[in-house]
Amino acid sequence: MFDLGVVHTQIDRPAPEQVERLSVFGVATVHEALGRVGLMRPYIRPIYPTAKLCGPVVTVLLQPGDNWMLHVAVEQVQDGDVVVAGCTTESEDGFFGELLASSIRARGGRGLVIDGGCRDTAELEALDFPVFSRAINAKGTVKETLGSVNVPVVCANALVHPGDVVVADHDGVVVVPRDRVSDVADAAEKREENEEAKRRQFAVGHLGLDIYNMRGPLEQAGLRYVD
Amino acid sequence: MFDLGVVHTQIDRPAPEQVERLSVFGVATVHEALGRVGLMRPYIRPIYPTAKLCGPVVTVLLQPGDNWMLHVAVEQVQDGDVVVAGCTTESEDGFFGELLASSIRARGGRGLVIDGGCRDTAELEALDFPVFSRAINAKGTVKETLGSVNVPVVCANALVHPGDVVVADHDGVVVVPRDRVSDVADAAEKREENEEAKRRQFAVGHLGLDIYNMRGPLEQAGLRYVD
Amino acid sequence: MFDLGVVHTQIDRPAPEQVERLSVFGVATVHEALGRVGLMRPYIRPIYPTAKLCGPVVTVLLQPGDNWMLHVAVEQVQDGDVVVAGCTTESEDGFFGELLASSIRARGGRGLVIDGGCRDTAELEALDFPVFSRAINAKGTVKETLGSVNVPVVCANALVHPGDVVVADHDGVVVVPRDRVSDVADAAEKREENEEAKRRQFAVGHLGLDIYNMRGPLEQAGLRYVD
Amino acid sequence: MFDLGVVHTQIDRPAPEQVERLSVFGVATVHEALGRVGLMRPYIRPIYPTAKLCGPVVTVLLQPGDNWMLHVAVEQVQDGDVVVAGCTTESEDGFFGELLASSIRARGGRGLVIDGGCRDTAELEALDFPVFSRAINAKGTVKETLGSVNVPVVCANALVHPGDVVVADHDGVVVVPRDRVSDVADAAEKREENEEAKRRQFAVGHLGLDIYNMRGPLEQAGLRYVD
Amino acid sequence: MFDLGVVHTQIDRPAPEQVERLSVFGVATVHEALGRVGLMRPYIRPIYPTAKLCGPVVTVLLQPGDNWMLHVAVEQVQDGDVVVAGCTTESEDGFFGELLASSIRARGGRGLVIDGGCRDTAELEALDFPVFSRAINAKGTVKETLGSVNVPVVCANALVHPGDVVVADHDGVVVVPRDRVSDVADAAEKREENEEAKRRQFAVGHLGLDIYNMRGPLEQAGLRYVD
Amino acid sequence: MFDLGVVHTQIDRPAPEQVERLSVFGVATVHEALGRVGLMRPYIRPIYPTAKLCGPVVTVLLQPGDNWMLHVAVEQVQDGDVVVAGCTTESEDGFFGELLASSIRARGGRGLVIDGGCRDTAELEALDFPVFSRAINAKGTVKETLGSVNVPVVCANALVHPGDVVVADHDGVVVVPRDRVSDVADAAEKREENEEAKRRQFAVGHLGLDIYNMRGPLEQAGLRYVD
Repeated sequence: MFDLGVVHTQIDRPAPEQVERLSVFGVATVHEALGRVGLMRPYIRPIYPTAKLCGPVVTVLLQPGDNWMLHVAVEQVQDGDVVVAGCTTESEDGFFGELLASSIRARGGRGLVIDGGCRDTAELEALDFPVFSRAINAKGTVKETLGSVNVPVVCANALVHPGDVVVADHDGVVVVPRDRVSDVADAAEKREENEEAKRRQFAVGHLGLDIYNMRGPLEQAGLRYVD
Repeated sequence: MFDLGVVHTQIDRPAPEQVERLSVFGVATVHEALGRVGLMRPYIRPIYPTAKLCGPVVTVLLQPGDNWMLHVAVEQVQDGDVVVAGCTTESEDGFFGELLASSIRARGGRGLVIDGGCRDTAELEALDFPVFSRAINAKGTVKETLGSVNVPVVCANALVHPGDVVVADHDGVVVVPRDRVSDVADAAEKREENEEAKRRQFAVGHLGLDIYNMRGPLEQAGLRYVD
Repeated sequence: MFDLGVVHTQIDRPAPEQVERLSVFGVATVHEALGRVGLMRPYIRPIYPTAKLCGPVVTVLLQPGDNWMLHVAVEQVQDGDVVVAGCTTESEDGFFGELLASSIRARGGRGLVIDGGCRDTAELEALDFPVFSRAINAKGTVKETLGSVNVPVVCANALVHPGDVVVADHDGVVVVPRDRVSDVADAAEKREENEEAKRRQFAVGHLGLDIYNMRGPLEQAGLRYVD
Repeated sequence: MFDLGVVHTQIDRPAPEQVERLSVFGVATVHEALGRVGLMRPYIRPIYPTAKLCGPVVTVLLQPGDNWMLHVAVEQVQDGDVVVAGCTTESEDGFFGELLASSIRARGGRGLVIDGGCRDTAELEALDFPVFSRAINAKGTVKETLGSVNVPVVCANALVHPGDVVVADHDGVVVVPRDRVSDVADAAEKREENEEAKRRQFAVGHLGLDIYNMRGPLEQAGLRYVD
Repeated sequence: MFDLGVVHTQIDRPAPEQVERLSVFGVATVHEALGRVGLMRPYIRPIYPTAKLCGPVVTVLLQPGDNWMLHVAVEQVQDGDVVVAGCTTESEDGFFGELLASSIRARGGRGLVIDGGCRDTAELEALDFPVFSRAINAKGTVKETLGSVNVPVVCANALVHPGDVVVADHDGVVVVPRDRVSDVADAAEKREENEEAKRRQFAVGHLGLDIYNMRGPLEQAGLRYVD
Repeated sequence: MFDLGVVHTQIDRPAPEQVERLSVFGVATVHEALGRVGLMRPYIRPIYPTAKLCGPVVTVLLQPGDNWMLHVAVEQVQDGDVVVAGCTTESEDGFFGELLASSIRARGGRGLVIDGGCRDTAELEALDFPVFSRAINAKGTVKETLGSVNVPVVCANALVHPGDVVVADHDGVVVVPRDRVSDVADAAEKREENEEAKRRQFAVGHLGLDIYNMRGPLEQAGLRYVD
């Protein structure tokens, strides 16, 4: 499954209109709608505060300090895609910069999530090319050792299959399995409506204790109020 | 002292005008004025660069991955208060988001310091609701296990009692014991005046070596100048 | 070489026009031009996003929690210099703040790189005084123990000699040995020209696979494409 | 795939004799034989130096600070199995101790790999019950929130399916997919023979430079020898 | 409360026979008996595997890289005491070594818990002088800046008062408030008896699912078993 | 100075009898005798508790995930040497194992200090081949990219020149410049004699407060004793 030296050129992507539906929601909402799974570890951060991403995934498995496979991956990028890169070991080298970004963009790609480092961050922000990475690092990489493209990869503790949809914003990065995109968009919509109602209640001073009927369970759990 | 399952509903707060006096000073100044104690570890960071806080503390002791007690704490918040949350273990889950923020604000509360994670950070910045946290994390929490409210808590290595005043800005977070607020404001004022005088000296090129009379002690300690 | 208690008052600096030449390049370019050595570890970060630095180095070796030697170092600063501070152990205390910044600026100094903590960060940003540090920390320091000034120091894993040139921006910090400044500026210029040509190719959709002639080597390494 | 609240009671395990073949090899050898994939991050460490494990996997997906699902998992353990536990967030609480160990052992289970904390470590060493964990921590857990058993889990960045074989020793932990166990045992045997031959060569003073014919490639890469 | 420059020479200690009662229990048991509070963060580790400690606490608040106050503290040590040292900032210097250990032992003291570094670890193991520390570090310290002795300190996130009892073993370190020692010993005894009964049940193959009556709650929470 | 792709074949080593003199002292003593400089960061740890090293250094500068240069370095090893390996970026891969160890030993080399990972640790302990590393990791490396041998390297924040002497034991690793070896051995001897005298005083109950005449300075610094 995780073989090295393989590029899968055919991957199934979800319907673009389903991806668009998902793209209006924040990561926290999508993560809840998905059943609280699929979130990357919080050490993955946007390289600039307003970076946001939503799109089908082309995966890459990198070797430490080596970005050869990112060049291989770019050729597999289609309109709307996001590249997600895992690595066989922890490596914070600067695997990615402005040139690869303009190459991905030339193919219609939207951005990158990488369990590694990124450089040229000022230029990437100027281009508004969203990258979510574990480090910012000027250290470049070599092009010597094979990884793979479009195999399942683990990125920051999340399993990502090619064709899954990744949603990323200031709160983090979540991976939605391809066959769940439509369901999750439905659930996110419901959740948002529900939250909107609650938002109004909270704003006028109602307490979560009452909105969520917590007083009984708290008492039963033994909570004591002391003057 | 650190019992679980207790909510203290009566806490003593310092006089609001004393809190206001303190609020004009930066954290570095307050920490010095307090005698160089009471500072939280620097891993607690503002979720947006301009976040600032000063107010009396309502404390919460959380369980990992569980924000039940934050809902309990909100009911104890009064005008001007800041919630400070410790946790029984290290946990970077997203204990706090927009709904709880609008609930705290509806009661006049000012913000949150949490030795845990926070989510909805874009919304919180839009609301200008200051949060100082150890992580940003979309991962939500459950509501299952009791902690406590308004007991002494340790937050990022600082001991915090309910009614203490927390001051937080881009340099960090410091805790001023309730009965020291007035003294510390006095000392901070003196320090600021003193710094202002020094600031002018430094700005025109006088050296710390001379301003602080360091040349003698340095020579005595054995410092050698070599051409 | 790393003796404590010594201040070297005479250091050789590179020609200012060579430093100016270098100052137009980003850190990633300079690091490549230097042969991929001399980069500090990526935990050193700017205290505000637009901070940039380029200048000859005055070095300081600090003791943990003690900024005495920074005051000694300021006297050695000349027009255009950058202070680079290492520490005998890991220490994230706030060794540096606004007063020392205005003192360095009064002497024509440009900024600071420190393998330690920094405070007064809002004021430093307001002054546009660039600091690259490992932490932001309101904790002040004492003035009790000797280190050294203008000895070789290790800062975030990079060896720095007095008179070397440090280049720092959002991507990191790199150290150029004094006698390499002119060469590196030459190499950076060539690299930039080369990159500019490639940038245009990437922007119109040419692939790195073709631009860098990778297809043959990838096949030889055994890369398999699977439909 | 990663649904919460599910227990799969039927899993396919590899033939026991294939597992036994694999058990004679060290982790470094198995990892090489598998093609250099499937290794957990090195922060997973044995709780005592001589701990070793090899067996088919029963997986558990835990919630932070909650070991309910470990009790559910034990019922699924069969003779020779190893439990591998991932967690939905980073959590170093003590999910596991002596009682659960004796429960696993009573069912013939061999040990545990957990991306979380472990306690009762002296007792576990006395029992020679091997645990590989990310932390040792006396902090106990609650039993409140559902995870899953025998779903695919990510543990310390490795993807683990129920029925895969985990091999763990002082060098780390590697996961061998169920359908690769026999192949990998073959490859490990060949590798060991090959290594044995090389071991003899190295022991009598032959150099890797010659044994692996590196001198030519090094020269071609530009290596210069300087007196 | 956390004033610097103060030594309290009179502290109340619990009755020695109560301390002895507590000393037979492991940390995990004591932590549970205390109500799951008071545990230090798990980064505090024994410097050798068999180190164990139980005794009333003399506290020290250290400055980074400075062990002056440890010398002051030793004079306050009485027969059976344990020294617990916090630090005003994170510092991994080697504050403590063989000479201080023999000084503490000469006064009847039992060992040290320190949120900092320790050196001479081979000699300390040879002496069987138990130290629990956050680091092992040959780096010595200066004797220049005041901290305090026998004030409340925070050590690895636990609040410790002089006269509290610290219990430390391979699983971690827990702090028992002085007035809870007797209660906690009672609760620990009960817990041990209870565990012993359960231990026998687990050992003969009964499951936690049945011993703790979890099947109903799991079903109610929605757990599904799938063949 | 830090050029890549260079092997220096001629290095000056200190006189073997001076190295032998140094080898009887612990790292803490040598570090003090050297003037409290030259210590590696404490994250470098022995792979087994009794590992010890003292010898002249052959240096290696590695690339991440690549151990090619270790093979090149072995050829430069002479009787009594220790290999010290830095890396251009942080990398915890397993650069080193049993075969390279037996190759170093066949040439009379004594051990390794590496700012990276090590594997085959059980075998290395069985051989009593001392390695001090930042990680234990079964992940192997490639042989693709040039570094250098016998250039100055930074290893765990210490500057190391070829021919310097490295001393390593359970307390850490210190680097003694080649031309200081004899001096440092002298100073270490004096220090040990001095410590021996103090050891006897401490053992019979004299306090550091009196042995080091601290009472006056403490009083002058403002220390207050409170009943």
